[in-house]
Amino acid sequence: MTTTVLDRIGLLVTNDIAAGAGPLGLVRNASVVFEGDRIVSVAGAGQIADRRIDADGACVIPGFVDSHTHLVFAGDRGDEFAARMAGRPYEAGGIRVSVAATRGATEAELLSLADGRRAEARRAGITTVEIKSGYGLDAHHEARCLRVARSFTGDTTFLGAHVVPAEFEGRTDDYVHHVCTDMLSAALPYARWIDAFCEVGAFDEHQSRAVLAAGRAAGLGLRLHANQLGHGPGVQLAVEMGCASADHCTYLSDDDIAALAGSDTVATFLPATDFSTRQPYPDARRVIDAGATVALATNCNPGSSYTTSMSFCIALAVRDMRMTPEEALSAATVGGASALRRGDVGRIAPGCRADLVVLEAPSYTHFVYRPGVPLIRSVIEAGSLT
Amino acid sequence: MTTTVLDRIGLLVTNDIAAGAGPLGLVRNASVVFEGDRIVSVAGAGQIADRRIDADGACVIPGFVDSHTHLVFAGDRGDEFAARMAGRPYEAGGIRVSVAATRGATEAELLSLADGRRAEARRAGITTVEIKSGYGLDAHHEARCLRVARSFTGDTTFLGAHVVPAEFEGRTDDYVHHVCTDMLSAALPYARWIDAFCEVGAFDEHQSRAVLAAGRAAGLGLRLHANQLGHGPGVQLAVEMGCASADHCTYLSDDDIAALAGSDTVATFLPATDFSTRQPYPDARRVIDAGATVALATNCNPGSSYTTSMSFCIALAVRDMRMTPEEALSAATVGGASALRRGDVGRIAPGCRADLVVLEAPSYTHFVYRPGVPLIRSVIEAGSLT
Repeated sequence: MTTTVLDRIGLLVTNDIAAGAGPLGLVRNASVVFEGDRIVSVAGAGQIADRRIDADGACVIPGFVDSHTHLVFAGDRGDEFAARMAGRPYEAGGIRVSVAATRGATEAELLSLADGRRAEARRAGITTVEIKSGYGLDAHHEARCLRVARSFTGDTTFLGAHVVPAEFEGRTDDYVHHVCTDMLSAALPYARWIDAFCEVGAFDEHQSRAVLAAGRAAGLGLRLHANQLGHGPGVQLAVEMGCASADHCTYLSDDDIAALAGSDTVATFLPATDFSTRQPYPDARRVIDAGATVALATNCNPGSSYTTSMSFCIALAVRDMRMTPEEALSAATVGGASALRRGDVGRIAPGCRADLVVLEAPSYTHFVYRPGVPLIRSVIEAGSLT
Repeated sequence: MTTTVLDRIGLLVTNDIAAGAGPLGLVRNASVVFEGDRIVSVAGAGQIADRRIDADGACVIPGFVDSHTHLVFAGDRGDEFAARMAGRPYEAGGIRVSVAATRGATEAELLSLADGRRAEARRAGITTVEIKSGYGLDAHHEARCLRVARSFTGDTTFLGAHVVPAEFEGRTDDYVHHVCTDMLSAALPYARWIDAFCEVGAFDEHQSRAVLAAGRAAGLGLRLHANQLGHGPGVQLAVEMGCASADHCTYLSDDDIAALAGSDTVATFLPATDFSTRQPYPDARRVIDAGATVALATNCNPGSSYTTSMSFCIALAVRDMRMTPEEALSAATVGGASALRRGDVGRIAPGCRADLVVLEAPSYTHFVYRPGVPLIRSVIEAGSLT
């Protein structure tokens, strides 16, 4: 098999503490050899291979791991967004607009739309992506969305419990039963994870627990939307159920932080959502200092965070969430991998998947120092220059 | 001369109230014909020309007018930036680091560095740029920086009064005299404007007035850095002296706002600077509601705002400065033109320069709806597809 060397790397972020300096495992004047889709070796300059890619002194990082997206949907909610910017608060109910558009689209249309978004995310340096359903909200349409999502990733998440669809208005418990039975059965062939939106206006603690328990019984991994719009039971529930990740975590009590720190549930922050909904930003500093593992993700979706820019999320995390540039980069790579319980991505080390991003910058600090500037020069995903 | 038609424009922003709907002069299903570097006609679909460019249903806006940049410098201040993100406050003194690097570079190096930044800005949709000196701080080096800047724009600004250089430490009045005499003489062949940094730690009201008066006597137009780091006399001075623009305006009293509203001095906001220095964002709503003209600019510089992304500035202006998407787009185009007292750019109308930006989006709302996502599909500057 052909080997490739990416060399003349000015600054390499490995996220491998044993291989380099500091918490990011930094190596200067480095080269990386990969074969097929796997990394073979990481060393200083001078490694030889069949093929050579020149990083020209730039900084190279592991591809971003985006552990929370909703890439499969139809329709545009730009008008709702503009109204919100004019003062209307964000409410979960807007999700129903996307549900109607998604149900109305053909599977080929959904595939094409998601493909465009996946390509945009790749250009933004994202090489691993989780994708949720949640705009189908019946057995047929949830399964269809997950089948589309499965074309792009193994990390597909059944989010039937996203919001109560119009046809179950006022009958939330009936809908939860439907989610846990017929919808789960239909989704199962295409799903790796199950998730619920535990929030006032969506599903309460009891209902969310029922969804997670049903998913676990069916063999799915667990994750939870928690504490986005206010304090609530979500984070504690996520820890109690052993979720891989509690996502949003915008409002955290001291008890929530202690629970996260004492568990292997990752706190996944979605700052572009707080930007787009004019919520306050979470205080990541407290969570990190308590010892919890944190991740950053885009939450790309048409209502509350229509972005694929992990660079933007990193800039917000440093400016407004009291993370250092090092912590933010770690959260967007190996942190996302932890939130997906994956050891093969998020690091540049022998045996890991060859996901490498060459920056248009000498350092990852530029994600914050140069906000809004496109800094992704080239992307190697599973060994292929895209 | 060859005529070109840009057609199949889904949504055209003209900024020409007579030509379209609302304050942005919106025209749907439009086409624009230009000849050489000038716009000839704006109409619905069906205009014919020698050459055709297909906008494929996208939104087209006037090229951004970036009325405040410092593109000519050498050196990187990423480390200082990272230290600031770790808690150190922003102070004007960091400018001296760039002065040392800029003086140490050759003119060819400065030209190459500025050319790279100008190209980056163009890819970001900026078709008109103002460039200040201010990293030379002696007669020879200020003139050299302005000569470089003149390669890129007619809107060059002599900013000898940026900060007191080390060799004049403790002798600010002596330095101001030098700025107003020898340095001004050396700068004059290459400058259209004069500017001063009126702020605690830089130049006081009296010193700033002296600089502006000397510039006016030499035939230069006036602009002023005002009220960036705290309340102060800058805005009132800018209005008193008839400056084209008061820039920053982060801290404004009611009297400052009334003064701006009663003048033709534009209030130019630089939100990427407030982002990068962790200052509060200015309340643009109050300024607009009072009736003042406002502009948005990047302030691209290596210390306090190293970005060329006007899209990012627009997103911040809407999220954090209470501007509507329409107001922010207007401020970044025709507002910038007002701040440079230019009527030939910032609008898409017959006789204006053919500066047209095709978005990767159906509406300018996407600058805020899709933060961080590259939305500039193609840029036509002075009639040339770049």
